[in-house]
Amino acid sequence: MARNGVSREIPEQWRGKRLVPYSDPYAARPDVERATRPLKRVNPGERKLVDTLQSAIERAGLRDGMTIATHHHLRNGDDVLNHVVRVIENLGLRDITIASSSIHPVHAEIVDAIREGTITRIECGVNGLIGELASRGELDCPITVRSHGGRARSIITGEVPIDVAVIAAPCCDEYGNMNGFYGPSAFGSLGYAFTDALHARNVIALTDHLVPYPAAPVSIPQSLVDWVVPVQRLGDPGKIVSTTTRVTTDPVGLQIARYAAQVIEASGRLRDGFSMQTGSGGISLAVAENVRNLMRRHKVKGSFGCGGITGYFVDMLEEGLFQALFDVQCFDLRAVESIRKNRNHVEISADTYANPFNAGAVVNRLDCVILGATEVDVSFNVNVNTESNGYLLHNTGGHSDTAAGAGLAIIVAPSIRGRLPIIKDEVTTITTPGETVDVIVTERGIAVNDRHPDLKAELLRRKAPVKDIRQLQREIYAVTGTPRPLEFEDEVVALVEYRDGSIIDTVRRVKA
Amino acid sequence: MARNGVSREIPEQWRGKRLVPYSDPYAARPDVERATRPLKRVNPGERKLVDTLQSAIERAGLRDGMTIATHHHLRNGDDVLNHVVRVIENLGLRDITIASSSIHPVHAEIVDAIREGTITRIECGVNGLIGELASRGELDCPITVRSHGGRARSIITGEVPIDVAVIAAPCCDEYGNMNGFYGPSAFGSLGYAFTDALHARNVIALTDHLVPYPAAPVSIPQSLVDWVVPVQRLGDPGKIVSTTTRVTTDPVGLQIARYAAQVIEASGRLRDGFSMQTGSGGISLAVAENVRNLMRRHKVKGSFGCGGITGYFVDMLEEGLFQALFDVQCFDLRAVESIRKNRNHVEISADTYANPFNAGAVVNRLDCVILGATEVDVSFNVNVNTESNGYLLHNTGGHSDTAAGAGLAIIVAPSIRGRLPIIKDEVTTITTPGETVDVIVTERGIAVNDRHPDLKAELLRRKAPVKDIRQLQREIYAVTGTPRPLEFEDEVVALVEYRDGSIIDTVRRVKA
Repeated sequence: MARNGVSREIPEQWRGKRLVPYSDPYAARPDVERATRPLKRVNPGERKLVDTLQSAIERAGLRDGMTIATHHHLRNGDDVLNHVVRVIENLGLRDITIASSSIHPVHAEIVDAIREGTITRIECGVNGLIGELASRGELDCPITVRSHGGRARSIITGEVPIDVAVIAAPCCDEYGNMNGFYGPSAFGSLGYAFTDALHARNVIALTDHLVPYPAAPVSIPQSLVDWVVPVQRLGDPGKIVSTTTRVTTDPVGLQIARYAAQVIEASGRLRDGFSMQTGSGGISLAVAENVRNLMRRHKVKGSFGCGGITGYFVDMLEEGLFQALFDVQCFDLRAVESIRKNRNHVEISADTYANPFNAGAVVNRLDCVILGATEVDVSFNVNVNTESNGYLLHNTGGHSDTAAGAGLAIIVAPSIRGRLPIIKDEVTTITTPGETVDVIVTERGIAVNDRHPDLKAELLRRKAPVKDIRQLQREIYAVTGTPRPLEFEDEVVALVEYRDGSIIDTVRRVKA
Repeated sequence: MARNGVSREIPEQWRGKRLVPYSDPYAARPDVERATRPLKRVNPGERKLVDTLQSAIERAGLRDGMTIATHHHLRNGDDVLNHVVRVIENLGLRDITIASSSIHPVHAEIVDAIREGTITRIECGVNGLIGELASRGELDCPITVRSHGGRARSIITGEVPIDVAVIAAPCCDEYGNMNGFYGPSAFGSLGYAFTDALHARNVIALTDHLVPYPAAPVSIPQSLVDWVVPVQRLGDPGKIVSTTTRVTTDPVGLQIARYAAQVIEASGRLRDGFSMQTGSGGISLAVAENVRNLMRRHKVKGSFGCGGITGYFVDMLEEGLFQALFDVQCFDLRAVESIRKNRNHVEISADTYANPFNAGAVVNRLDCVILGATEVDVSFNVNVNTESNGYLLHNTGGHSDTAAGAGLAIIVAPSIRGRLPIIKDEVTTITTPGETVDVIVTERGIAVNDRHPDLKAELLRRKAPVKDIRQLQREIYAVTGTPRPLEFEDEVVALVEYRDGSIIDTVRRVKA
């Protein structure tokens, strides 16, 4: 055991992997060359179209002990990962690692494959049942949770070599050119799949919309795709993207959004060239709306909006408030329409978006990011992975990436959720280190990290409800009472990897 | 010496390089993994903007014996390669290799750097003076001529590792996002630069149009670019792209174009899904015009036009005759306007365009390519590299790539050029092997490769002037007389590499 840079005990190794304890957000430097893969040759006349996914996976040569990947652009409507796992079970393969970009509740059926030993390692974060079962000690399957940038890094460094990537291709031709703009499963940006297309030893495109050659525009080109498999459907279109995403109407949420906008205004960053990321949650969108009004009022010409893109950001692009959007994932239909039509709505890879080990990721250029939390603590550490019951229920997404990159990382959260206080002495799990978190905004007040005395002073001057984080915590505890500490076994069921590959925390089995 | 697959004597090694003799167009398979490079980290707040190219090249750590690359999108208006070489001379470096995508007459001034030993190897084809001097034995600088696809292959296999790539970026921001669509030097597709951006150990963007972050659309992203250098100008805009490219008005050329269109019609390939590449020469464009009329008449809906793109292909796209354009290089202003505006005008890398060692290049999907020649021979071998004086004066471009990929590779050329016959017993230099050349069209008749008896029969049925190639040669010789054979020394001054990396021919010193 070693105590890491945020005082968590990290084992020296775990399930056959030597662990590097997290030190700080910016110091680690890559000491490897970019991962490679064998080169291929496809001559004129050779075909890539294969009847079934099973046949394509057999041609790819998937064997016991290998690693597969899919991508979560279809979100909780995704059929692809379940389909892949059924094929793997059918082929009688054992000891397969899943290195997808994320696993969702819709993938609960793969629990059986884990129990049978078909799947024995998960190299990505999990949303829902699988994490819960792991937290209860009911699954013997090591999980490594990664951020979006961290996943790209792990593939590019070769830490996680992918043998077979199966890419959901909403619009694809028989030679593998694809985009996510058209077709019944159109989800917009193919952001998470680019790194796999470049690095997986075998690349299979799965499509429910095979178009005459060539599919255009081309997001991922034919020269990176080995096989194309037509299927009836990639998933449930109704669950792939929201028809719309909406601003919260909850008064608590609206109050938080007003305070957050006040923080942005006070930070001095809301000037020409301003850039921002928000999520798709109702509070985040309310912040975006407030910021939009401020930008209009102050005639600010922003540079870019980024991240998962919603219709709100599209409106800001089309209104000229942003010069461009950087999109790794479309959150709603309006974003899908926009990426199809607006040349300044730029599709980017997770590598370009957030990988710390390249020549400079987009997150580095963010003035401001609005992020959520399941818990924060008095050191400004943030947890988004585990819930108040200690269960691993959420993936990291771009949380720690954008917090590290942005000039101003603002956490917005109601002070009390399910009768539990949002601010604790120590978060259950550290997803994002407090050193990269600048402000915590609740409806009861604003806590500013000591690293920003000027911002704190300016907020006080503007009569914003700035409070020391411990005072804010006390006020919340006065309502909720002091929460009972969760009890854990020693057994580690998952690692939370920081974006640079070091281990920032572990998830332990919850005491029954 | 070994006799290769097209009966040319190839030395076992040359200037320190072991040579693989060419065998056949399709058999060679890659036996290496993709080349790699060290990974980097750029943290928030770090800047990439550097005042001078010299300073950027110093930061990149260029040393004696290393390799640099630039790209020929600026064609004969390019200032970049000369600028780079001046900097290298200024730094007192020695023994530098140039691995640009092409060298043009405008780069004649680097002859001094070659004579001084600053530049000692050229890993690309040359147009103009440098090749002429090499052919005369006046430059001690080994040259390896490569096709567009072959160059991409040589970088991706690691055969030619690039230490510093300097990319001309017509529209660029301070963090390295770039496109070729806007700015005073806008040249459209960045096709040749993509592979370098992905593989060079250091990537410098040179721009005469620095825009506020972010430059959008993004063709090459910030995550691949290390330094950005603003300069007054990248080149002479008047020489970068033609204002227009025009169909020939020469009656000989028009006759050839009519015959070529007849061949395409007779081939049966002119049906829905038809795809084509032509160059920007007047005869090629006349063929394109004839094909356009045939497509209209027969109501053919083509799939794609490809290659260097001209306004003619843009018209065909906009008219719905092609579904998409694949563009590795824009040939005129109308193509630049189109790639900026038409989403189905797809910018592709030279790798995706023509590299034989990937999962399938665009050239593999060509129904038909129209190509030129300085000479052809009775085995259908084609020379585009050397002229009738034996001097190495032209780069290969996509010639051998498209001939190997296309279902129908048609050579169009006047039967007599400068009083010399186009068809010889043996071409001076084999650029493209006859096995990949299907038809030779001159104004005196059409020669069909024996591999296509059906096409020959169909053309005869249509009363086209089909002639045996030896008969056609005799008819031409009857006018020109039998040409006097050129005399060469034994000394090899350049290699002509086939797209798979084998050596298809050598260029020898011309006897004084």
